Amino acid sequence: MIHANARAVFNPEGPFKLTEIERRDLQPHDVLIEIKYAGICHSDIHTARGEWGPVQYPLVPGHEIAGIVAQVGSEVTKYAVGDRVGVGCMVDSCGECVNCHKGEEQYCLNGMTGTYGATDRYGQYTQGGYSTHIVVTEDFVVKIPDGMELDVAAPLLCAGITTYSPLRHWGAGPGKKVAVVGLGGLGHMAVKLAHAMGAEVTVLSQSLKKKEDGLRLGADHYYATNDPETFAKLAGTFDLIVNTVSAKVDVNAYLSLLALDGTMVNVGAPADPLSVQAMSLIGHRRSYAGSMIGGIRETQEMLDFCAEHHIATEIEVISANQIDEAWERVLASDVRYRFVIDISTMENE
Amino acid sequence: MIHANARAVFNPEGPFKLTEIERRDLQPHDVLIEIKYAGICHSDIHTARGEWGPVQYPLVPGHEIAGIVAQVGSEVTKYAVGDRVGVGCMVDSCGECVNCHKGEEQYCLNGMTGTYGATDRYGQYTQGGYSTHIVVTEDFVVKIPDGMELDVAAPLLCAGITTYSPLRHWGAGPGKKVAVVGLGGLGHMAVKLAHAMGAEVTVLSQSLKKKEDGLRLGADHYYATNDPETFAKLAGTFDLIVNTVSAKVDVNAYLSLLALDGTMVNVGAPADPLSVQAMSLIGHRRSYAGSMIGGIRETQEMLDFCAEHHIATEIEVISANQIDEAWERVLASDVRYRFVIDISTMENE
Repeated sequence: MIHANARAVFNPEGPFKLTEIERRDLQPHDVLIEIKYAGICHSDIHTARGEWGPVQYPLVPGHEIAGIVAQVGSEVTKYAVGDRVGVGCMVDSCGECVNCHKGEEQYCLNGMTGTYGATDRYGQYTQGGYSTHIVVTEDFVVKIPDGMELDVAAPLLCAGITTYSPLRHWGAGPGKKVAVVGLGGLGHMAVKLAHAMGAEVTVLSQSLKKKEDGLRLGADHYYATNDPETFAKLAGTFDLIVNTVSAKVDVNAYLSLLALDGTMVNVGAPADPLSVQAMSLIGHRRSYAGSMIGGIRETQEMLDFCAEHHIATEIEVISANQIDEAWERVLASDVRYRFVIDISTMENE
Repeated sequence: MIHANARAVFNPEGPFKLTEIERRDLQPHDVLIEIKYAGICHSDIHTARGEWGPVQYPLVPGHEIAGIVAQVGSEVTKYAVGDRVGVGCMVDSCGECVNCHKGEEQYCLNGMTGTYGATDRYGQYTQGGYSTHIVVTEDFVVKIPDGMELDVAAPLLCAGITTYSPLRHWGAGPGKKVAVVGLGGLGHMAVKLAHAMGAEVTVLSQSLKKKEDGLRLGADHYYATNDPETFAKLAGTFDLIVNTVSAKVDVNAYLSLLALDGTMVNVGAPADPLSVQAMSLIGHRRSYAGSMIGGIRETQEMLDFCAEHHIATEIEVISANQIDEAWERVLASDVRYRFVIDISTMENE
């Protein structure tokens, strides 16, 4: 077993404590990564607090991981010691089902293995990136392009791919009007990516508080959804709406903003069911859809796209002893736009 | 003005009474049609009873119209006296918006003109096909192919195009698994059409009561939705689900039957909102969509497709004095699969 230091919660309420965890010994296709940075995702909080179902404690969250290859298994061909690499929301899948064969491992019919809070094929409970080291099979490791800093790369592994994949799938590009609902960790990446893809980008945010930011990030337009005029003015406008808000929203109001054949895609998952009027869909052959992260091949494509277009996440780097405070600020939407833990501070008290 | 006999309701409760209505004098592009058959659609009942909003009385329903051209306006080029023609759910649209330009007049941004219960560009309240004659601009008239009987052609103008259009739009064809929810007027056409397009067709009906019929119409499989085993057995199976039921259904249960990237499309419009769990969509990048009839060009394409594949609707022909009784049977789902009024009986008491 390989020892790693980590920050874990020992019950749903926290707080984080420094602890030691064990990573499996390297299997032939495994890569040992020395983690340098780990992003904080809102879903870390939902999961650790048991809001998405029961979890085992202690739990080490973190699925936005950037680091350096420290050791490789005997049959690893894709990576070598010293490579700059990343790991996202999943660390394994069956590799045999039709969806895995398509490169859509996130939709593995036998269930992909989450980076933390899941039981892997070795029977071990997975622990995430708020930690000094992780062992992952090479097929679930991606290369961080040269010239991209590790700290800004980390959040791309979840916030980046979660927005990149639906933008690509539903054809965001020149001549397309894309709206992004919510300007948080996911939203700010959706704006940057859709803009880089050549789409006309509109932010729909609760207020105009972040308007200046939104325009700087690449939005062409910015509207407040607390102004009812917004919905009247923009009716029938968009080809694609990416909804990054995981709170309950008035879906029918947003659907009314779609043009013929437009799609609204949820990348967040509100716990409560949403109320949809069939006529909201039938009127202009609209679709209401969902999308979850992206496959490994597509994650690499996203990283390369970001490198090519000089797209980075906007981050605030924190020390490991600030995680509790950072979580409170995430819950209060008080972050522009992602916290990233500097893992070199792991042992600080 | 041109006089026509018609069967109208004079209040939400009915009954139908014989009356005389006026059709506009022929404008240069108008066609006068002597109606031979008119289908009875469930939406006739909803509309006439004011369940979809207020209407004016007397009201003559009917938007599945088949007949013979009796007279043409001075500039009509598409039709001549004696031609066998049909009229569906709409009789006009703006012709100028982006959707009309795409041939999707049903989604006209300025509002298409319904065949009955709408105000047309002349300020007249439109009256439908339960009547001896109708005047329609030639652009909203379709040709009934040679060799197709007028009585079985009539229901194609609504039930046919309403199911044909989404099947085409979402790519029903060889290698695709299509489920049809509900085996009524729309459902029986969806089965025939999807089968003719080469898809593998499954009927999902409340019980197995119509199973023999379903298989005869072209279904490969038939399952009862009142058996919970059905949902477990078929999880993740379909590329497309066409929901023809306009009552409220458990959308999440049906969404769970979709494979990766599958779409469930509503062609009926339940009055009550439907409850959708975002996770039902996100899990396999599923879509929940709606579709409304089809454009005029596509309606002609559908008629030609039906002629080529020898597809007819299954009908029960009734006299004009049987409409009240037929409506009661429609509400009781006691029809296989469409009532068609023989308009030659219009004056019978």
